Formats: sequence, C-alpha cells, structure tokens
Amino acid sequence: MKKFINQPSDYVTEMLEGIYLAHPRQLRYVNDDVHCLVAARQVSGKVAIVTGGGSGHLPLFLGYVGEGMLDGCAVGDVFQSPSAEQILNVTKAVDRGAGVLYLFGNYTGDLINFGMAAELAEFDDITTRTVVGADDVGSAPAERHDKRRGVAGIFFQYKVAGAAAAQGLALDEVVRLAEKTGAATKSLGVALTPCIIPEVGKPAFSVAEGVMEVGMGIHGEPGIAQEAQADANIVVDRLLPILLAELTFAPGDSVAVLINGLGATPQDELYILYRHIHRRLAEQGIQVFHVWCGEFATAMEMTGFSLSLCRVDAELRGYLAQPAHTPFFTQFAITEGEHGNPS
Amino acid sequence: MKKFINQPSDYVTEMLEGIYLAHPRQLRYVNDDVHCLVAARQVSGKVAIVTGGGSGHLPLFLGYVGEGMLDGCAVGDVFQSPSAEQILNVTKAVDRGAGVLYLFGNYTGDLINFGMAAELAEFDDITTRTVVGADDVGSAPAERHDKRRGVAGIFFQYKVAGAAAAQGLALDEVVRLAEKTGAATKSLGVALTPCIIPEVGKPAFSVAEGVMEVGMGIHGEPGIAQEAQADANIVVDRLLPILLAELTFAPGDSVAVLINGLGATPQDELYILYRHIHRRLAEQGIQVFHVWCGEFATAMEMTGFSLSLCRVDAELRGYLAQPAHTPFFTQFAITEGEHGNPS
Repeated sequence: MKKFINQPSDYVTEMLEGIYLAHPRQLRYVNDDVHCLVAARQVSGKVAIVTGGGSGHLPLFLGYVGEGMLDGCAVGDVFQSPSAEQILNVTKAVDRGAGVLYLFGNYTGDLINFGMAAELAEFDDITTRTVVGADDVGSAPAERHDKRRGVAGIFFQYKVAGAAAAQGLALDEVVRLAEKTGAATKSLGVALTPCIIPEVGKPAFSVAEGVMEVGMGIHGEPGIAQEAQADANIVVDRLLPILLAELTFAPGDSVAVLINGLGATPQDELYILYRHIHRRLAEQGIQVFHVWCGEFATAMEMTGFSLSLCRVDAELRGYLAQPAHTPFFTQFAITEGEHGNPS
Repeated sequence: MKKFINQPSDYVTEMLEGIYLAHPRQLRYVNDDVHCLVAARQVSGKVAIVTGGGSGHLPLFLGYVGEGMLDGCAVGDVFQSPSAEQILNVTKAVDRGAGVLYLFGNYTGDLINFGMAAELAEFDDITTRTVVGADDVGSAPAERHDKRRGVAGIFFQYKVAGAAAAQGLALDEVVRLAEKTGAATKSLGVALTPCIIPEVGKPAFSVAEGVMEVGMGIHGEPGIAQEAQADANIVVDRLLPILLAELTFAPGDSVAVLINGLGATPQDELYILYRHIHRRLAEQGIQVFHVWCGEFATAMEMTGFSLSLCRVDAELRGYLAQPAHTPFFTQFAITEGEHGNPS
C-alpha cells in the first residue's frame, strides 16, 4: 500500500488533526470531536449551511467550509457517513437563528443520518431544510433522478448557496438557489485505476490495462460500462453529449465547467481534456462562463476525472462570481475584462 | 499508460492550448508560440519576473504567472528546458524598463538557455539578473550548494520576489529578497512510484513494493537512499532533521512550511504528515508562520511528497503574507487573528 500513513485506523483522525493544526484561524471543532468541524468565524444572523459525508474525497466535503461557502461539516470515516449526533452537534454550533441548510450528496447513509439530525434539531427549535446533490448521470437514468449519486457537481451548489447565505438571503431563498443549481448540474466521470481504503489495504476492484470505467462513482461504484481506453478527445466526445442531452440552454444561458481530477490524474491532462470540451461547446454555440480545473472531489489515489456542467443564467453567474475563502478553496471575485489570445 | 491524452507528441501544446482557453483573462502568449506565456495584465514600471522550465510539474512553473507573483514563463517540453529564444521572447514581452529577474530551478539546460537569453536581452538594452532555486538538499551536500537542484521550495522565492516587485521595489532589492529566501529554503522529497513521460510511454525506473526513495528529484533523479517504506511519522522524522540541520533560527524567526504532493498522493496524507511535522517543530520551539499544503510542484502521476521549510523573519513574512492571484494559485492576505482549538 503506497501511502504515507500511520495506523490505518487512525487515518481520519490524524488527517483531521493535521488540518486543525494547519488552519487554526479558519477551522475549529466542537463537542471535543474532531469530526465536528465548523468555521472559526461564524457570522451572526446568517443562514447556516452544513454538509457532511465520508472521508477520502478531499477537498470534499470539509474543504468548502469557510467564508462565502459553508459553515460546518460532519466528517465520517473513509467512505462512511458521519453519525446523526455529529451532524446535530455541528448544526447546533453554527445555527444563528436564521435556519440551517443541509446540503450533502445523495447517499443512503447520509440521507438517514441527516434525516435523524433534522428531527433532533427540531427539538432544539432549529429549522433545517435539506437539499441533496444528485448530479451523477452515470448512476441512474434521468427518470430516476432521486436515485442518482452526488459527486463533484455539488461544488456548484456549495458555491451558489454559500454566496447567497453570505449575502444575507433567507433560508427559503438559499434552498431555492441550491435546488436550482442542482437541477442545472450534470456530472459524469471516467476512472482508469481504483483507490485503496486504508483499513482494507488493497483495491476493492481493478480496472484492466487498456480499459476505462465510464460513469464510475467516487467510491468505486460501477459505472455505465467498461470500455477500451481512448484518446482524451474521444473520451470527451463520449461524456459531453450525455451531459448536454439533459441540459436545455435558453438565450442568455451559459455554462460553468468543472473538470475534476479524481486523485492521481495530473492537471496537464485535465487541461488537455478542457481544450476539446471548450471546442465542442463552442461548436454548439454554448458560451463558457468560467472553468474550474483541478481537484474538487477526489477518491484518494484514483486515476480518473469527472466533468460537471452547470447551466447558468445571470442569477447563478452572480453567485458563482462572488469571492470565497476556505483553507482548500480560494477565489477572488470573477470579473469580466480583457481577453488574451483569440480562442 | 493510464493517461487521458491524445498523441503523446501533442501533450504539451494541447495542455497549453487548454490553459489559454480556460484562463483568457489572465494569460496570453506572445510571438505566436504557446510556449511563450505571459500575464495578460502587465503593470507598467514594475520589475518583471520571468521563470521557465520543463513541463510535467503543474502548477510549476507557469502556474505562478499572475498578480503578485510572476510576469512570464517560457515553457519547455516534458522535463526539458525551453529554448533561449523562447525565454528572450517572454523577456521582451514583459520588460517595462525596470529590469527583469530570471528566477528558475538549478538545472543545466535551463542555466544554459537563460544565460543565452540574458546575453541576447542585453543587445535589446534589457537588464536581467538571475537567481536560481537550489533548495533540494537530497541532490548534493551543503558544501556543493551550487550543484543542488531546484524543487518545490522555489514557490517561496516566487511569492516573496513577486510581492516585492508588485510593491514597486527596484531590481536590486527584488534580487536580494529572492536570494535571501532561497538561502533560507530547504526541501527534501520521498517517492513511492515513478511517473511516465508521455512520449516514452513507460516508467524510466521503478520503486519496489515496500520501498521508498528518499531524496528523489521531480524528474525521478536518484535520491539519497532506497529504504524500507515506513509510517508517516517515521518518514517525517527521517526528513525533518536533515532540513533543520541546515537552518539556524534566530529570535523572532519562524518557519513557513510547504507540504507538496508530487502527483498521486492524496491531500489526506499530506495533512497526516503535517500533524507530525507541526509537533516536531513545536518540540524544538520553532513557530510555524503559515503552512501551504497541496500540489505546488508535481512530477505528473508520481506518488510521493516533498517537504520544504523556509526560515522567515519579519521581512519575509511580510511578503509571503501578501495576496496573490494566478489561475493556479490564489491567496488572500494572511492576517493574524483568533485561533481555533488549542493545538
């Protein structure tokens, strides 16, 4: 197992201890539990946004806690949901009386535990609302949208809802924007190698040389198909039409693009992929508002990437363009301006 | 070869095309050559900073071109120096009459080509000065400092020199600060797997299961020793004393820490490593000014990490704390403030 770790059973707690030591001005934990992570600075009166989910996906989920994004995160073990109690503790720590949005990926364990936490929060007179990320078109057909997994596209929901909450919008509005963004976001990934859960010590599956798994989930869930590994341009042409088939663009709409490395894939390759994505979108007359290219939702050392498209109107662009500042994600305001070489 | 690429011979140009398409407001190229990359916004009157080097290390080198950092980068093929002509073209495009600092890693090809470019620039009445990054203590003993390779620690030189130039300091001062930072920066890496040059198609070497290569370079140059793979804490205890032995801390000094993933190593592991680094530094009474943890200088899909320490006084802290904004590195100003949980 080619990892820099100590005891596999200490993987998550030691990772979290390292994060708190590295970012003491930005993050802290509550209830003496390192799994209950909150932003060090809580803004009074604001709608709070809480996420949570299994470890092994950095910067997802905890990496988006900070200014202009989320207020807290309940951190589970590798690929495991946090407990309802941990979610509740985070909820109590971040609620400022304006209500709490639960925004997390559509996985059974998380649904159960966030659901229990919401019921318990009600006893404490904390209003919660739930929006799930379910952007992975590889995990279920469009008519079974409720069965779809949440993957990297939740970044767009974090960004929009986080900016809306930072601007002081009410819970109903933050919920509406998170749902609107979710409905406009579609993702699909491709993997070339598996990852290794530290406590298991070996890959749960393998991808043969010369084979790519299309639609694989960020925990290694099976995808749409195992196919012959293809050139980058061909991979783009395999994924992009599937995503575009689910998005109807109206005049004035543009697209936000997220090219997400799953762990081991170099950024060079993500840009080689983007080159062709940009051209294909241009051919269809779809303007790119902004592209985020890097690691946003990983599966530890998995080789692969996911492509997420978010159809954006002026309202969503306005929130995506706001600055954000977390230990794992920093963005200055996105402004229009002069362009470089003609594209 | 588990990569998302097209023709291996197009790897660098397609990567660059993707970067220009993704960041048209921040980057452009000159002389119709995508390898000649400059910041889209050039500030008049400012000392310009030009870097360059081989591809395959993103975000190094080009990723640091932008506000508060560098003005241009000559991009070579994978692990190859750019040409003197490309460096000269970038130099001419960014010179604003205040002189140009060449700041790059200590490799033979780069030294030759930057040297030729400097001579050619003189004919155009452009003053250049050269400072090299030579932070890798694994590449030569301290008494042969001139033979040491430059690795991730050059980030600190970019950050300090870039902030100094942005504040309008003269070339002599920017050079002094780049040199001061370089002398205070020491790095050492460990690798568990090699990387694959696209045009070669297979690893140039291998690291056996259960073995770690201590001191390996970012092109796979041999390190200090091949040793039995050890727990994260033990790896830290192997590296840290070697770095600290070369740094003498005066009262008021603190340390800036860079934990750099070489490509495939998850961020979780970098934070597990930082946990122990922080404790060991605290035991020695060395205060951490700030830690940067992520991918800053990679070797494509290599599994491994490097640790860089930069001893900082009030002057260097002031420049490191300034904001920066490039397509690959964004930092808000670092401010002191309340802390989270006690460490």
